[in-house]
Amino acid sequence: MSKGIPKRSEDYSGWYNELVRKADLAEYSEIRGCMVIKPYGYSIWEKMQAALDKMFKDTGHTNAYFPLFIPKSYFSKEAAHVEGFAKECAVVTHYRLKTKEDKSGIEVDPEARLEEELIIRPTSETVIWNTYRNWIQSYRDLPILVNQWANVVRWEMRTRLFLRTAEFLWQEGHTAHATREEAVEEARRMLDVYATFAEEFMAVPVIKGVKSENERFAGAVDTYCIEALMQDGKALQAGTSHFLGQNFAKAFDVKFATQTGQLEYVWGSSWGVSTRLMGALVMAHSDDDGLVLPPKLAPIQVVIVPIYKTGEQHEDVVARARQVKDMLSQAGLTVKLDDRDTYTPGWKFAEYEMKGTPLRIAIGPRDLANNTVELARRDTKEKTVAPMANLETRVRDLLNDIQANIYQKALKFREAATSYVDDYEEFKKILDTKGGFIYAHWDGTTETEERIKEETKATIRVIPFDSKAEVGKCIYSGKPSSRRVVFARAY
Amino acid sequence: MSKGIPKRSEDYSGWYNELVRKADLAEYSEIRGCMVIKPYGYSIWEKMQAALDKMFKDTGHTNAYFPLFIPKSYFSKEAAHVEGFAKECAVVTHYRLKTKEDKSGIEVDPEARLEEELIIRPTSETVIWNTYRNWIQSYRDLPILVNQWANVVRWEMRTRLFLRTAEFLWQEGHTAHATREEAVEEARRMLDVYATFAEEFMAVPVIKGVKSENERFAGAVDTYCIEALMQDGKALQAGTSHFLGQNFAKAFDVKFATQTGQLEYVWGSSWGVSTRLMGALVMAHSDDDGLVLPPKLAPIQVVIVPIYKTGEQHEDVVARARQVKDMLSQAGLTVKLDDRDTYTPGWKFAEYEMKGTPLRIAIGPRDLANNTVELARRDTKEKTVAPMANLETRVRDLLNDIQANIYQKALKFREAATSYVDDYEEFKKILDTKGGFIYAHWDGTTETEERIKEETKATIRVIPFDSKAEVGKCIYSGKPSSRRVVFARAY
Repeated sequence: MSKGIPKRSEDYSGWYNELVRKADLAEYSEIRGCMVIKPYGYSIWEKMQAALDKMFKDTGHTNAYFPLFIPKSYFSKEAAHVEGFAKECAVVTHYRLKTKEDKSGIEVDPEARLEEELIIRPTSETVIWNTYRNWIQSYRDLPILVNQWANVVRWEMRTRLFLRTAEFLWQEGHTAHATREEAVEEARRMLDVYATFAEEFMAVPVIKGVKSENERFAGAVDTYCIEALMQDGKALQAGTSHFLGQNFAKAFDVKFATQTGQLEYVWGSSWGVSTRLMGALVMAHSDDDGLVLPPKLAPIQVVIVPIYKTGEQHEDVVARARQVKDMLSQAGLTVKLDDRDTYTPGWKFAEYEMKGTPLRIAIGPRDLANNTVELARRDTKEKTVAPMANLETRVRDLLNDIQANIYQKALKFREAATSYVDDYEEFKKILDTKGGFIYAHWDGTTETEERIKEETKATIRVIPFDSKAEVGKCIYSGKPSSRRVVFARAY
Repeated sequence: MSKGIPKRSEDYSGWYNELVRKADLAEYSEIRGCMVIKPYGYSIWEKMQAALDKMFKDTGHTNAYFPLFIPKSYFSKEAAHVEGFAKECAVVTHYRLKTKEDKSGIEVDPEARLEEELIIRPTSETVIWNTYRNWIQSYRDLPILVNQWANVVRWEMRTRLFLRTAEFLWQEGHTAHATREEAVEEARRMLDVYATFAEEFMAVPVIKGVKSENERFAGAVDTYCIEALMQDGKALQAGTSHFLGQNFAKAFDVKFATQTGQLEYVWGSSWGVSTRLMGALVMAHSDDDGLVLPPKLAPIQVVIVPIYKTGEQHEDVVARARQVKDMLSQAGLTVKLDDRDTYTPGWKFAEYEMKGTPLRIAIGPRDLANNTVELARRDTKEKTVAPMANLETRVRDLLNDIQANIYQKALKFREAATSYVDDYEEFKKILDTKGGFIYAHWDGTTETEERIKEETKATIRVIPFDSKAEVGKCIYSGKPSSRRVVFARAY
């Protein structure tokens, strides 16, 4: 398998695009901005879904399904929400096609025009809160803790596989509560779930915090987020969780009777992660030879490649390979034995490197004689010869070590790419040279934030929960500031 | 919990609608023909998905994801396909909303009109075969065995929760093969998977066979199907699997190089089941008191209801209930302990009856004294007092028995509702009285089939694979026929 992907150091963007394609993760369809998620890419997404879904259920949530279509009038009900999404909506106006009169093809039937246009959901707050109005009468009906796995459409003009596509897959949690405190607690709890998932499964370290007003979700009171750093020094927002206040309850008239019988508006949260995480996973860990996947999300954790020349060797080597496969499979690992004779071992090595398989086991005639196998880690490229005895424990330890090592490597990278800056000129210089996260003082105004964005393309990614109170001056305006925020250029 | 659902014998249709609502399965949204699948209903669908997905993977398939949107021009490429779906398509024509000039609301931005309209997929053959053209060059790329879990839209005029909705959830398998034989074999294999799922998980007996030309999928060479019988004597098509021949390969120019280097068109199959199965599940087994669910698909297999009066009793009874719950949960069963003190045991009994929980365990003070529990089956309403000793085995056996009994009951019902008819007047009389499946001779022409449909509303549901060769005369035309086909009125 020819690699033929650009080097990260030379063309990071080209490297990403080619890698996504060559590793069989996804490709563009002929439909503007829409991607096809290929079987290998989808199998990674399924692993993500399974882990997240379990975490959602363990925190008391259930799944449900709401309509794809949102009537245009729902949209207008929450002012900030419509403002945020109106410019990128796919709109259904008709419900029938017909054969052209001259039989030359089909056309939209002008008589089948909808009375009210339907928007393809870009997010489902409106249709869900309109439903919650009927589900909620009293405090006994609360909380509602519902999640939906679905496709959504946002008509983006500049698209990028996984990172920004017109249609994408995601989950969106929508919860309803009796008190402000409970809704805030829920939004924070789900942000913690996302952070745990990013760090423990994706092996991607994240900063947890709150967005500035400018970057807030359209319709939220507060948007919490996790921000990750990619290898090119750009930030990527990996998940958001919103405290909605009573905004959607008011827009859709959702009230409940309290224990004392008073009618009050319901408090809400919503939270989501999407196939964008696939892009983050690729860009956080992979190298010039292909994907590097954390074992917890790898569709194949261990690949076994038999190496042989003569027919008799083949039989013995493959028999041993099967034995190793069965042993590791029974231990609960996902193992593939690739004994195709239409490809050389070297071709296979390159193939599984490209696909990010965490551990490769090669078994040849010498291994049979010595009762050994060759283990090759994808992350460090390290090879060792290991005895058959205790192989299961060895493999399990190695996979744990790979998972931990990938995380540590990403964490070290982030630390090295993090700067504390007090001067605007230095700020601009760092953005243009090493990039990364820049902790700087900001005066708290949208005006300053927007000017910095215009001049440098950097935005405030997050105001970290754990940032310390610190007296300082805004790098742009010189006005007083009480804590640093995190700036970066971002995907 | 008040039941308040009509009796099946008095108003079958009303019974179904109310049951779906009262059992918290689904409800209509305010969007025409679109439903909200509520958490309890969705959790049954998740069980179905999990079982089917495993069966698909065990037969070598992988999941992928293709765009929601289909350009209008793709549609025209397969003549029968466009003919079949054009009349019920949701069409996207614009990609932006804007604020009205007088600020009175939002409107579709006329300047954001798409050059080519996009159809919301009613099924994905066109967009997938257009992709397969790039995936397939040589026989080495075949077979392709891909499945997609997705939402689809068919703009039906008369809708019914689960059975017929404008948007529904389904899976659609799309496979590509080097030979006709392999494609037919695949289509048949997947029909067998559907039949196994219907019978072993849903406990619904089905007839396997092929559709008449008139009922064939638009674009298929042959449509195989499984047909089930509902309690009102109407048939329900529960799943279809299509042998597509080379129709879509020709429409989208998908060729492959054979081992001898010749270019040939690829052979295809597609197959799907949908949330319609939820409707079949409800209508096949449930009774006037609510749902009856097969244990293999029940979100809660066993519910434990503690019964007590004084505070001390409460503690002891709940402690025992917890012990039973832990024991059964550890044995791999899905168990819920409902110890809410805001509802009476009687209310809870009615609630879990409505929701179809297969087995109820009640534990009261007398049970503590006697070291027993009370077991109540949902299917037969039978109650027995059982000793704590060996309870786990007892419960497991009971669940197996319930699963088998529900199936047997549905099978007996179908057998009793099956007629063999040789006379058209009797045929009409049976349709109007007992309904059910009618095995009758047919002359094989679409003309006869359509006349019978017009006159009786009965259609040919299936030409069974296992029907015996038998010389006879068409009940309508009197022309010779070589085998019986199955007629019924259908959902």
